[in-house]
Amino acid sequence: MSYLTETLHTQYRHLQHLKPFDGAHRTTPYLSDPQAKLQRKLCDSLEQAIERSGLQDGMTISFHHAFREGDQVINRVVGTLARMGFKNLTLASSSLMSCNDALIGPIRDGVIRRIYTSGMRGKLADEISHGLMEEPVQIHSHGGRVKLLQDGELKIDVAFLGVPCSDEYGNANGTHGKSCCGSLGYAMVDAHYARTVVLLTEDLVPFPNMPASLVQDQVDYIVRVDQVGNPAKISVGAARVTSNPRELMIARSAADVIEYSGYFRDGFSMQTGSGAAATACTRFMEEKMERNRITASFALGGITGSLVDLHEKGLVGKLLDTQCFDGQAAASLGRNPNHVEISTSVYANPGAKAACCDRLDIVILSALEIDTDFNVNVITGSDGVMRGASGGHCDVASAANLTIVVAPLLRSRIPTVVRRVTTRVTPGESIDVLVTDHGIAVNPARPEIRQRLQESGLNIMTIEELYQRAISLTGVPKPIEFTPRIVGVIRYRDGSVIDVVHQVKEDA
Amino acid sequence: MSYLTETLHTQYRHLQHLKPFDGAHRTTPYLSDPQAKLQRKLCDSLEQAIERSGLQDGMTISFHHAFREGDQVINRVVGTLARMGFKNLTLASSSLMSCNDALIGPIRDGVIRRIYTSGMRGKLADEISHGLMEEPVQIHSHGGRVKLLQDGELKIDVAFLGVPCSDEYGNANGTHGKSCCGSLGYAMVDAHYARTVVLLTEDLVPFPNMPASLVQDQVDYIVRVDQVGNPAKISVGAARVTSNPRELMIARSAADVIEYSGYFRDGFSMQTGSGAAATACTRFMEEKMERNRITASFALGGITGSLVDLHEKGLVGKLLDTQCFDGQAAASLGRNPNHVEISTSVYANPGAKAACCDRLDIVILSALEIDTDFNVNVITGSDGVMRGASGGHCDVASAANLTIVVAPLLRSRIPTVVRRVTTRVTPGESIDVLVTDHGIAVNPARPEIRQRLQESGLNIMTIEELYQRAISLTGVPKPIEFTPRIVGVIRYRDGSVIDVVHQVKEDA
Repeated sequence: MSYLTETLHTQYRHLQHLKPFDGAHRTTPYLSDPQAKLQRKLCDSLEQAIERSGLQDGMTISFHHAFREGDQVINRVVGTLARMGFKNLTLASSSLMSCNDALIGPIRDGVIRRIYTSGMRGKLADEISHGLMEEPVQIHSHGGRVKLLQDGELKIDVAFLGVPCSDEYGNANGTHGKSCCGSLGYAMVDAHYARTVVLLTEDLVPFPNMPASLVQDQVDYIVRVDQVGNPAKISVGAARVTSNPRELMIARSAADVIEYSGYFRDGFSMQTGSGAAATACTRFMEEKMERNRITASFALGGITGSLVDLHEKGLVGKLLDTQCFDGQAAASLGRNPNHVEISTSVYANPGAKAACCDRLDIVILSALEIDTDFNVNVITGSDGVMRGASGGHCDVASAANLTIVVAPLLRSRIPTVVRRVTTRVTPGESIDVLVTDHGIAVNPARPEIRQRLQESGLNIMTIEELYQRAISLTGVPKPIEFTPRIVGVIRYRDGSVIDVVHQVKEDA
Repeated sequence: MSYLTETLHTQYRHLQHLKPFDGAHRTTPYLSDPQAKLQRKLCDSLEQAIERSGLQDGMTISFHHAFREGDQVINRVVGTLARMGFKNLTLASSSLMSCNDALIGPIRDGVIRRIYTSGMRGKLADEISHGLMEEPVQIHSHGGRVKLLQDGELKIDVAFLGVPCSDEYGNANGTHGKSCCGSLGYAMVDAHYARTVVLLTEDLVPFPNMPASLVQDQVDYIVRVDQVGNPAKISVGAARVTSNPRELMIARSAADVIEYSGYFRDGFSMQTGSGAAATACTRFMEEKMERNRITASFALGGITGSLVDLHEKGLVGKLLDTQCFDGQAAASLGRNPNHVEISTSVYANPGAKAACCDRLDIVILSALEIDTDFNVNVITGSDGVMRGASGGHCDVASAANLTIVVAPLLRSRIPTVVRRVTTRVTPGESIDVLVTDHGIAVNPARPEIRQRLQESGLNIMTIEELYQRAISLTGVPKPIEFTPRIVGVIRYRDGSVIDVVHQVKEDA
């Protein structure tokens, strides 16, 4: 054999790198071992999977947050890493929730040194806002996270991805098994970019578990665990369904804005995001669509049961789903062929060759604060403490033809419309309309929309008028006191810094 | 804004690379232009797509061969590149066929300087075998091609991928439209690895054309053309259906071998490849499966109408399809949810984190020659001229538990069983059983299989006996006369050189 390659090398010097054949299984030794052939990825325990993953101090680990408040993977893996003695890790979860308070200890102990996340809530966010970490948390959007991975700022060494079911080769999905989260849109990105992928699965099912959301050629190790998540808690928090009369009123008003905006045409597309009023708006769309004989070509993003209803009634052609916001959506994804799972790259990555959000006509988004320049804050509360998530907010706001923000004018007697947002997440140039329970404001950059809405008799005010209304009811809020120290960096979807979050001053 | 990043850089020196926000559309300028937003990938002509692709002399272009003998993309694109004056390109088509004779001119003119392919046929192969090219053709397996891409030896600059339908964002599939080729398993790999992807589509359909086989975040440019392929010609040649009595007899005998091999168990898996006898064997399996109440968990690889029949009768659980061998298979892929499209990486890449072929129990493969050490030649004919394809032959042979080669003992009075194959593509260590019309031989490395087949009354001979039978009928063939010059390099699936092909001597 080597005679062959010698002759080849003599005739063609540029082929010197070609090596002679040296046995059928030279690069695939596991093919000689019937057991290894089938089970080489299976690990007996999470500890073994971590050891085999090659994880070392200082590396980057990642997680998806499809189970939202029901996640049972992040805390467990980080707790195990802490017990195993790992230090100085970068935690790159697609987001963090109130359920992640258990990370406070490992952060304090130096197990986690840096965090990339779309957001955070609860005690963890409170501690970080008060200076828990030595380094500022990097807050990214869903699309922006993929851009950070694509650009190489964020390099995932080991992704730990919880799934309800997988076969021994790593073909996994979120729609079959005991605890279904539905779309694995976040995890698909990690499986694509991570050097090493460890699946935690509730159920080991027979090969081939296809079609698969995470595919065998992306997966290195598989470990079976009792539970990866509680699907009942997916719709807790931001993704909840509301019966609050004020939220419903805002939702109805937003549906009116859509109807008269000029973008409510047959074949339109929409996203209704998370946030109670935003998701509630979906329900008010149905009557308008039927009355006007208008159907949507697709709905995008986080998918809710309300959108599934519209889809199954034929009012929405396709559901492009990067995250299921409830069990009804997860069940639909496993059942409806036109309910399609998409990665967050395909959803909203500004560095992708195309992002679905660029095709959006209408998006409804929520806000913790919006200022008189229409800048939106979805991260920090009125006390300056982080309690939210960037999510897809700035991604879809920048891309959609009509971006509507829905918010009550006041929350617990504190204005939502402010002179200047505490933290800027989405720039005002991306926001077209604000819908509150006290009136509707249109960005002066969109006079044609203002005119259409006024002509249809909606209660249009300037945002300055809404602001004056708010402070006339509550007075101007006392400024939040921050220290000079930066504890969070708000990254715009393209990776640039659009704002920073300062450490809040301790209560006296 | 820059004040923010200055403060950040002062506090955290390692974050110096973070830049300040500079407008919502800084990295996505097309979002400010309603037409660009929707149509920025669309090109008016193939020439325009080539110009926008950034292709330059010396770069590598790629194609898929899902339309097999019906392909209308490769010749057209290379012809256009020739007219545009390109030189010294590397052509990396997943395979080449008899329909590609039109490449001879561009090769002679220096448009194409190097070729990577799974195989070649017809006049093109004849010319190359007689010294058309200055550099030897690199012949790879289907799985091995992906490994070459993964390892970086093969870097695709621009992939030109023909599809029956795509939307303006590049979401494409092979199952809808006028000319359906079915699985885009080869193209999926090119879309993944190529720097720039140009789709040639027969039909531009409304967004979102999802689920998609080639996805929008992989596609750069799209050009509409009249026809990308003639699906009627997919099953011409290697993938044809046979009514030849000798081929049917071999196929029936191969089915008997399967039945008594010890691998015919409920839940088994199989691949029946291309080649008339191999595909015909599928039909004989049905009766055996029904009689023994045995069903297969999956069938893999190139999928035929016969396999679709077994699937629709419930005898094969899943069809894992990297290439449709006929229109019936293509139609099934668009209709049957358990007929699943897989990339050639997932199919057979030895560098992948897992390849489906590693799960195969039984595979039936064909051969142009097989020698007394069970080495198989599927590339060169008895005249030393290239007229075949490596395909998935060595991939699945190395991985399956039972690898059966089917071949007539003689072809046109020339032995198929030989002392030494003209060209070694698959090593004998990977072949377990040879089935001919004159008897069955079992590799001495598999005595347990030999025993089972003997006990069930099949006509078992040694391969030496088959060889002696062959030459007793025809005499020992006169050796082919080659020149010392190497015109083809046979790459094993791991990239190593398992053989070379020499230039054949001109007829006197």
